[in-house]
Amino acid sequence: MNRRTTSELIDAAMGRIPCDLVIRNAEVVDVCNKETFRADVYIYKGFIAGFDGERTAKEEYDAKGRYLLPGLIDAHCHIESSHLSPSEFSDAVVPCGTTTVIADPHEICNVTGLDGMEYMLKSSENIPLSVFLMFPSCVPATPFEHAGAILNAPEIEKFIDNPRVLGLGEMMNYPGVASCDETVMAKLKTAYCRRKNIDGHAPSITGPALDGYAAAGITTDHECETPEELHDKIRKGMYVMLREGTACRNVLQLLPGVNERNSSRLLFCTDDRQPQSIVRDGHVNYGVSLAIQNGLDPITAIAIASLNAAQCYHLDDRGMIAPGKRADFILTSSIDKGIKPEEVFILGRKAASDGKIILKAPHTEPENVSGRMDVKDFSEKKLSLRPGTDHVRVIDIIPGGVVTGKGEAWIKRDPEGEWIHEDDKDILKLAVIERHHGTGNAATALIRGYGMRHGAVAVSIAHDSHNIIVIGDNDHDMAAAVRKLISIGGGMTMFKDGKELGTHQLEIAGLMTDKRLEEVTACLDEMHDTAKKELQISSGIDPFMTLCFMALPVIPALKLTDCGLFDVESFAFTDIGIKE
Amino acid sequence: MNRRTTSELIDAAMGRIPCDLVIRNAEVVDVCNKETFRADVYIYKGFIAGFDGERTAKEEYDAKGRYLLPGLIDAHCHIESSHLSPSEFSDAVVPCGTTTVIADPHEICNVTGLDGMEYMLKSSENIPLSVFLMFPSCVPATPFEHAGAILNAPEIEKFIDNPRVLGLGEMMNYPGVASCDETVMAKLKTAYCRRKNIDGHAPSITGPALDGYAAAGITTDHECETPEELHDKIRKGMYVMLREGTACRNVLQLLPGVNERNSSRLLFCTDDRQPQSIVRDGHVNYGVSLAIQNGLDPITAIAIASLNAAQCYHLDDRGMIAPGKRADFILTSSIDKGIKPEEVFILGRKAASDGKIILKAPHTEPENVSGRMDVKDFSEKKLSLRPGTDHVRVIDIIPGGVVTGKGEAWIKRDPEGEWIHEDDKDILKLAVIERHHGTGNAATALIRGYGMRHGAVAVSIAHDSHNIIVIGDNDHDMAAAVRKLISIGGGMTMFKDGKELGTHQLEIAGLMTDKRLEEVTACLDEMHDTAKKELQISSGIDPFMTLCFMALPVIPALKLTDCGLFDVESFAFTDIGIKE
Repeated sequence: MNRRTTSELIDAAMGRIPCDLVIRNAEVVDVCNKETFRADVYIYKGFIAGFDGERTAKEEYDAKGRYLLPGLIDAHCHIESSHLSPSEFSDAVVPCGTTTVIADPHEICNVTGLDGMEYMLKSSENIPLSVFLMFPSCVPATPFEHAGAILNAPEIEKFIDNPRVLGLGEMMNYPGVASCDETVMAKLKTAYCRRKNIDGHAPSITGPALDGYAAAGITTDHECETPEELHDKIRKGMYVMLREGTACRNVLQLLPGVNERNSSRLLFCTDDRQPQSIVRDGHVNYGVSLAIQNGLDPITAIAIASLNAAQCYHLDDRGMIAPGKRADFILTSSIDKGIKPEEVFILGRKAASDGKIILKAPHTEPENVSGRMDVKDFSEKKLSLRPGTDHVRVIDIIPGGVVTGKGEAWIKRDPEGEWIHEDDKDILKLAVIERHHGTGNAATALIRGYGMRHGAVAVSIAHDSHNIIVIGDNDHDMAAAVRKLISIGGGMTMFKDGKELGTHQLEIAGLMTDKRLEEVTACLDEMHDTAKKELQISSGIDPFMTLCFMALPVIPALKLTDCGLFDVESFAFTDIGIKE
Repeated sequence: MNRRTTSELIDAAMGRIPCDLVIRNAEVVDVCNKETFRADVYIYKGFIAGFDGERTAKEEYDAKGRYLLPGLIDAHCHIESSHLSPSEFSDAVVPCGTTTVIADPHEICNVTGLDGMEYMLKSSENIPLSVFLMFPSCVPATPFEHAGAILNAPEIEKFIDNPRVLGLGEMMNYPGVASCDETVMAKLKTAYCRRKNIDGHAPSITGPALDGYAAAGITTDHECETPEELHDKIRKGMYVMLREGTACRNVLQLLPGVNERNSSRLLFCTDDRQPQSIVRDGHVNYGVSLAIQNGLDPITAIAIASLNAAQCYHLDDRGMIAPGKRADFILTSSIDKGIKPEEVFILGRKAASDGKIILKAPHTEPENVSGRMDVKDFSEKKLSLRPGTDHVRVIDIIPGGVVTGKGEAWIKRDPEGEWIHEDDKDILKLAVIERHHGTGNAATALIRGYGMRHGAVAVSIAHDSHNIIVIGDNDHDMAAAVRKLISIGGGMTMFKDGKELGTHQLEIAGLMTDKRLEEVTACLDEMHDTAKKELQISSGIDPFMTLCFMALPVIPALKLTDCGLFDVESFAFTDIGIKE
């Protein structure tokens, strides 16, 4: 708001000029007193002017006694996980009642560096959804792989004063914080010296390590898994996020630790929600609903998803239904069994109705964030796997999670020493091909538990450096899949016997697409069906998401980066062949 | 904290370097979970490093199971009301457990303008008490009087970016807000365009007027008097302050409206606490204790006085006992019946013990804020009162409040038309003498209910413009009292039969003194005793404070400024004589 708008809003509040809109007969959810009250809500130029009184409005809308509650705030998410560009993401989540997100563009920045930051800012600037960004703190995530960029304090300084950049994103490098790593400390300083927020990521961190982490000025955590951990982190001054993503779901785990007295220290977040989860279950409202269905007071749940997030991130213009605040709100018939938005308003305009977007986001042409496929000298030969012995280490997939087991196996090799696939063993080849800097790096390893008999699957989403990762029984299909991704700038693809079975293009950094949510989910559904039918992948294994986490060297136990097989427990590279 | 301190604090938290202090066996009040827990609290360079664990500390202090709670935050006060300079004020309130105040230097700025702002900033810079300022929004308070300065948006701009200036002070000009007065809007904008706070002052404002006030971005109110008003203001997004000053006491009135669900939207404040109240009853802790004694949960009360204020004013480094926060805390044996601090620590150093200050504040020589006594051509003749008729308007004092009645009386006049004092009528002369700009203004009126038979009392504290105000039965004593104040640069004085009965000098702007609290209260006690003995002032009337509010033209019903008798109800000047 500027001075003129403020004056006009006061004029509207005082009834001197007509409001634009009045929502009559609303049961307003007051997240400050934590109660509801019946009122006519007056809106002028996108902001709430007041309740009831002798005012006029150009337009009337009868809420017919439905609940009117503040738009929901996602306190931490990676838009990239939706596969959607920010404008498409807006169209996808606004119908779910999400009107503000605090997004960490960690994935796209790991591929495209500051160009990704620019793109995310620009493409989310004038869209219905309010998008605030946290500058990613961990690009690259580790020194054991090649990411697309290195972003340190000097790069952060270029963006941190942007009013839509609220601070530093999840500080995953907790060993770096604990050891006062100089680069990490310099990053933290860019935020706290401006009194901006620093988000945390502190799975299972307790005791003095948590003291040190909190003392560093890190104020949130979204990796809590138990009520005890929640309690401990709140005690240490942190806001704890109730996360309900696609893979990581903590609401039900954490709910026993939530009560009326500590509820002001909680937030809701989605972190990573896949497109199918958004379509089928919803967005922040899904976590809120789950909490309500499992006993949390509905108004408390709504306050956590609105007022608290606004408070934590100093977003003083939103988070409640009150004069002077943005008219971002949801209308719904019931709040006792969860939040299913029937109407969503943003800045006083109807943005969605019955789950369908009305206020579509204007599209921004992606600039400097195309696929980034700088792969040097790729050929089938790069996929060669010669362990040197028959006794080898294998990555054991653990269904439903991102953790792997550190397995061993006896394999067969051909006269040149090359690994031979055996039909009855469920051991496949995994390869990671560096795609950012043309290093020519390609590393191979063995993986067990995927189930596929014959063919290859490749994806360019491979946390956190997002090199190309491919799995297969034969180099020919694997190489074809890799070449396909290189040619289209990234995505997901499947090959069998030299034939392309299906492809989901992700042309923005190899992570996201400008296609619409419905198209994306339709394509993904078809890909899953085909994978099931043609590739016989084990039940319980998501053919694509599973691969996305096999190159993540911060999650135990055995992973593969473009630099080689990595033993997370000893935090060092290791050989495939086991020397007797 | 800078980068080095943060690294060191992490080192201390991780146990790599020894802490400075450990408070053993403390029952820590956790205002986030709203519970207590037993811990050893480690402190390094003034900040909390962590709880328990394997650490060492250079110094140990055994709390012996006593409660350790965050230092209290006064969300709104005028330091001037204590009569003390900021350094003396620090020595006075720190033993009460107040470790942070958000002060509005409204009084001194009304006398000395920006010099007052400079002085308050400078003199409070390096003292144990953390002093944050709100830039006074109403200098002058009204156009119906002469204050020492006019401070508008351009003057505010000079200070608003100072990190210790948190925003704009209480916006008393609510008609100006409601009418979108251009000067007022420009002032508001200086704060909200920087996302700084704007404090409110909205007595009995409800409905659309309150909507307009809240829509202007005003986020607090300390003028709530009923639970209904509290509820309404919280609903409209405002933080409501539970004020317990010397004259205005709202804690008991408001308490029925406070509950666990709305408690995060409340703050404690003292607003105006006289020196005697601080000595006898305490400071913020008095209001907190009153609330606890009358049923508010002790931890909730403490959270309101710490966490909530820190949150409202974005003071992210305090408000709780947690790693990374300032080691500002209180030790006390009990919290169930109120907060009587036994030990107060500031930045980990013992600042007060058993109500006595240990860490005395360094003194700052007042610069450019001496008495400001630019009074032109003062003589007894200026006190002349010729109403023109025998039927006159009189200001009726209402004991115990700042509101006056609009009375009438029949008086006697001498042959020149000059008012004659009558012993049996309890009507005295009141005069206000302009002291800032040498205008030569002096206005007189009649006042009833003070009780004094003979003599004169004068003070240079006369809200909000702080001209000299004097009451008496004869011009000779009145003039002597005025001359005394002019000669000493302001204060309070009494004369009878040409003899000075007692004087309390307030050499800083005529409002405050560099003397110590004990001296000030001893002097005031003696002044009160003398007034009682020598001047026969009515019981229930404070001889000095009563005068302080007789020139305040925003409080009904009849007041006197240096420009004349003012009818607050019709908001216009009026005559003393009533024309038949």
